[in-house]
Amino acid sequence: MESVKYQLSDIQIPRAWYNIAADLPRLAPPLHPATGAPASVDDLTGIMPKEVAEQELSTTREIEIPDPVRQLYAQWRPSPLFRARRLERALNTPARIYYKYEGGSPAGSHKPNTAIPQCFYNQQAGIRRLTTETGAGQWGSALAFAGALFGIDVQVHMVRVSYHQKPQRRALMHAYGATCLPSPSRATDVGSRILDDDPDCPGSLGIATSEALELAMNDPHTNYAGGSVLNNVVLHQTLIGQEAMTQLDMADDYPDLVVGCAGGGSNLGGLAFPFLGAQLRGGDSVQVIAAEPEACPSLTRGTVAYDFGDATGLTPLMRMHTLGHSFVPPSIHAGGLRYHGISPLVSQALSEGLMEARAVPQTRCFEAGLAFARSEGIVPAPESTHAVRVVIDEAVRCREEGRPRVMLFGLSGHGHFDLGSYEKYLAGELSDEAFDPDGVARSLTALPEVPGPAGAEN
Amino acid sequence: MESVKYQLSDIQIPRAWYNIAADLPRLAPPLHPATGAPASVDDLTGIMPKEVAEQELSTTREIEIPDPVRQLYAQWRPSPLFRARRLERALNTPARIYYKYEGGSPAGSHKPNTAIPQCFYNQQAGIRRLTTETGAGQWGSALAFAGALFGIDVQVHMVRVSYHQKPQRRALMHAYGATCLPSPSRATDVGSRILDDDPDCPGSLGIATSEALELAMNDPHTNYAGGSVLNNVVLHQTLIGQEAMTQLDMADDYPDLVVGCAGGGSNLGGLAFPFLGAQLRGGDSVQVIAAEPEACPSLTRGTVAYDFGDATGLTPLMRMHTLGHSFVPPSIHAGGLRYHGISPLVSQALSEGLMEARAVPQTRCFEAGLAFARSEGIVPAPESTHAVRVVIDEAVRCREEGRPRVMLFGLSGHGHFDLGSYEKYLAGELSDEAFDPDGVARSLTALPEVPGPAGAEN
Repeated sequence: MESVKYQLSDIQIPRAWYNIAADLPRLAPPLHPATGAPASVDDLTGIMPKEVAEQELSTTREIEIPDPVRQLYAQWRPSPLFRARRLERALNTPARIYYKYEGGSPAGSHKPNTAIPQCFYNQQAGIRRLTTETGAGQWGSALAFAGALFGIDVQVHMVRVSYHQKPQRRALMHAYGATCLPSPSRATDVGSRILDDDPDCPGSLGIATSEALELAMNDPHTNYAGGSVLNNVVLHQTLIGQEAMTQLDMADDYPDLVVGCAGGGSNLGGLAFPFLGAQLRGGDSVQVIAAEPEACPSLTRGTVAYDFGDATGLTPLMRMHTLGHSFVPPSIHAGGLRYHGISPLVSQALSEGLMEARAVPQTRCFEAGLAFARSEGIVPAPESTHAVRVVIDEAVRCREEGRPRVMLFGLSGHGHFDLGSYEKYLAGELSDEAFDPDGVARSLTALPEVPGPAGAEN
Repeated sequence: MESVKYQLSDIQIPRAWYNIAADLPRLAPPLHPATGAPASVDDLTGIMPKEVAEQELSTTREIEIPDPVRQLYAQWRPSPLFRARRLERALNTPARIYYKYEGGSPAGSHKPNTAIPQCFYNQQAGIRRLTTETGAGQWGSALAFAGALFGIDVQVHMVRVSYHQKPQRRALMHAYGATCLPSPSRATDVGSRILDDDPDCPGSLGIATSEALELAMNDPHTNYAGGSVLNNVVLHQTLIGQEAMTQLDMADDYPDLVVGCAGGGSNLGGLAFPFLGAQLRGGDSVQVIAAEPEACPSLTRGTVAYDFGDATGLTPLMRMHTLGHSFVPPSIHAGGLRYHGISPLVSQALSEGLMEARAVPQTRCFEAGLAFARSEGIVPAPESTHAVRVVIDEAVRCREEGRPRVMLFGLSGHGHFDLGSYEKYLAGELSDEAFDPDGVARSLTALPEVPGPAGAEN
């Protein structure tokens, strides 16, 4: 039988997450915004349990996965790795294309990989409620799923425009028993102030994050759970790349190129970091491409600076590629990629030349998503189509150059909740939201000042 | 690690489908409606390829699965079997509950199990187009998926009321490149006649089947593909039960009770028939319960008679439990269970006392679906919640009686396309459509007359 799926057994779920901070020695620490001093575990425990705060600041290479977390992972992990033979044939390419599929999780994306451990550690710490933000809803529904398993109340602040555009994602959170509020809302001071100024404010991920943080800061029984950007989240996602390495071993292959879509960066980092870590420790080198939306291009058009993770300055300062925390990206359909910054780990890897970035327009992504669906049978989430686009372009180049490269990409989720976007694309109703250089320039003038010695370098 | 998932490898995908017709000797054959003679392979080859027609009439116990079909199955098969330990704990039941999950397929349900072989045989026969009907859209999207892989055009006639209520399912068919028309339509004589009479006709599965059949009968390059009811479809679904047997072996367990939801019957038969076959050949006996909707109760309130599979009498006559082919079921949210009849194989198994049937109201099914989602993490399709309801009721009975029974049920699909229904249930906006005894009585007076000797018995 022609082999297309590389499947591992439950006992091959990794026993530890891989922390690339151990191999990136020049990584700048997060800073306390008032003092400019590196943030401490104590600075973070107001919004997250001690274990997660320690992971956030850790430089230990391997961090053990608790047994109850591995047991829950086993419901849908190890996730399958596929060889995309039908896509290869359709493209008539000599490239060997592999994809790691995370859409088989109960929430339909890679997000439960971090929702489960975050809920586990919070439950251990006696936390009864978690707040978070969500854009398209992948993260909110993943946390709602994990919260249901651990008996933790989950309150999701969903960007208002998505709240109304994506009722199915909202309904999924409700089905898991979570509360979902449109953001901005009157449930927070931040939200109330914004609504006072602009009752019709469509919201943004940054605003929703501010609301979730405000509630977590003001209630000792409530914590905040992040869906991307933070080091602990990227850490938890490294299961993806670790499993993929083992699966490629089974295929007796190793990638020349690794591609992932990049919003907050956890999907890309989760896939690519184990390969980059091997390279940094003397193994084979790989080319890594971050696929980001042309309308929100933090990696290709942003500045490297200390900036806030939210819209109103409640997070520590993080050194990263950013379009400025006040930038409101256009309403593209890959809502999970509409974020002004990126994981500091991904940012640092880019700065060190360990990866490159490519911005792609959304219509060419949907075109690639359909080509993939019709050959491989899986409809990708709009976010994932960014990686598909880059891989197809590279595979076509392989054909033109007669080069049989080995490619691995992350298919981070299925598109069953996003079919309205595909329908619009097919009807010719989608356009490419232009990059807004003036909006970014304005936003970059509002970067925070960094107090203390670090401020001099920023 | 506490084991909850029983996983097989690709080489454990069964090499043959199991045909229960070999073990049900008193099965009544389908009849040619004009002559009353048993239908022949030649009678069927106008709408399906010879291999499928032979499977439809076969009494051979094992029918080999072609290698290319097994290769495509391997994209998502073997499907996982789970022990529902968290649900067991939530119910505080001594029962051991297992479920076979088919929602991991690219179309999100068990339907690709038959879409793939039907497309394979049709492609081998040189067929360029397939027509079919769909209600909620599970079947239509599964055939669209398989058609894309085999380069076959797929035209789906979707019950008009669902076409408008379920735009995501329709969009999924479009994403795979299929055509989807609301039924009744002007594309057929049958549809045109119905629209002439009633321009606002909401449609029914029976009408949509008539439209699909008319097109297949009138074009030598077009065939019809059935999504349930037919023997060949039930045959293809027996992968489910065969895999489950092997997986329960791994768990060192065997079911006392097997439960599946029943619309056309292929999901239930696919799960239960391998177990009933083992019983018929001298193995352990199992209790089998068919879970059907109270609003469309063909097994618990229907008559056993020869009837048509479609609304206008284009199919052979099939002996089955039926509410009459002109019965239009109420608009319940489990659209896949809104069918007037049932697979003749399932019907015969019920008549022979090999299984029993239980009708459940939809609100209690959604209640069970939410209890399942919040403990096991998977939101079931509305159809599948019927099985969940029966299993929860039986598990509670085990608690009350202190009996540790072993239960297996089919979780035939995920509910990601049906979250609007859950949202309505949570908002208290769902009611239980009453069974309509007068409508059924009227419909039963319109049962077809059977010509020839078989007519005397009907």
